[in-house]
Amino acid sequence: MAQRRKKVVAPPTTIRRLSIYFRVLGGLKALGETSTSSGDLANQTGFTAAQVRRDLTYFGSFGKRGVGYDVAQLHQHLASILRVNQDWRMALIGVGNLGRALLSYDGFKNHGYNVVEAFDIHPELVGKTINGLTIHHTRDIHTLIANEQIDMAIVAVPAENAQLVVDQVVDAGTRAVLNFSPAHIRVPDHVKLSNVDLTMEVEYLSYAIHSLKTIAQT
Amino acid sequence: MAQRRKKVVAPPTTIRRLSIYFRVLGGLKALGETSTSSGDLANQTGFTAAQVRRDLTYFGSFGKRGVGYDVAQLHQHLASILRVNQDWRMALIGVGNLGRALLSYDGFKNHGYNVVEAFDIHPELVGKTINGLTIHHTRDIHTLIANEQIDMAIVAVPAENAQLVVDQVVDAGTRAVLNFSPAHIRVPDHVKLSNVDLTMEVEYLSYAIHSLKTIAQT
Repeated sequence: MAQRRKKVVAPPTTIRRLSIYFRVLGGLKALGETSTSSGDLANQTGFTAAQVRRDLTYFGSFGKRGVGYDVAQLHQHLASILRVNQDWRMALIGVGNLGRALLSYDGFKNHGYNVVEAFDIHPELVGKTINGLTIHHTRDIHTLIANEQIDMAIVAVPAENAQLVVDQVVDAGTRAVLNFSPAHIRVPDHVKLSNVDLTMEVEYLSYAIHSLKTIAQT
Repeated sequence: MAQRRKKVVAPPTTIRRLSIYFRVLGGLKALGETSTSSGDLANQTGFTAAQVRRDLTYFGSFGKRGVGYDVAQLHQHLASILRVNQDWRMALIGVGNLGRALLSYDGFKNHGYNVVEAFDIHPELVGKTINGLTIHHTRDIHTLIANEQIDMAIVAVPAENAQLVVDQVVDAGTRAVLNFSPAHIRVPDHVKLSNVDLTMEVEYLSYAIHSLKTIAQT
């Protein structure tokens, strides 16, 4: 146990900021930019330049003093830290509107996050093919996920069914769960869970609109 | 200007954590729990108890030393800080799978975030009615948004069309934009923009799975 603790693992908040830097660097690359700086990245993300430098320091020394970062190189470094483009095998549970949106989401399929199994409980969907994937009944989750070496399960079912589905995929051996339902999910310690909260940003905006109004009135 | 700066506005990261506390408190409330503590909230969210207390301090004094927080009361306070349940009027641009998923997303419609106008560019969608909403052509964005007192625009179009659509809604007077496309969007200073990054959590998981494997091997 003592040995395990010695390994430095960057905190989740740092990893999430790396994702944001990664996106901005992708944009800069697409625009043909070749170099950038912590100040640039700070401007484009809303974090401070010190924060950007501190986050990157976890993973070694990037950039040169006075010269900044090479856009393509840093983009590549972050892809490798985040393990993007590694052909992840994902199972999608719930092929409603949100599930279908995720199946065709460029951000997933262009970065090696491949949905290789899809499940739904609705008889009118089971057996159908969407984006080349045959939809299986959720009762087959255990057999199919256990046999298919699934890295992550994406849960896109209504809140009331989410915990049941998560229990099934965990029981089938899934080690990582990406939950899009607004339910509060529990998983055993050996399973990694991330919740995508679609409501958080709308709440941030409603706070921000109001606080701007208040400031404008003072 | 000096006067404006005097008003304390909590940083965006604090507001986003408030959203998470708000969700956890909603869960506790649903379970019939009546009191909680910063330690409880820390356990359920992964932040520290000190962070929870610091975030809440921005908005006054909640809870009693040794007693903790009243669940219903704190839930109500956070709803009022975040301006949830205030009947926000939203316009949805893009009624594809993601747009339709958002139209029926409980997290929105149960909390006063009402989509009152919907737009799409595809002839097979324009004129149709979904969830009681008639879909208008995007060419009518300017007239309809300007007349309808829209508080926020939700952008759920493909990345390549996102900036154009944002320019149109901003031009029509929208002060807040919630962007679900993976595009890097720019808005004028007077407009609030939030990006919902569906890829961030999947990247976090792929990092976490790998770092767990590495640690297990040492």
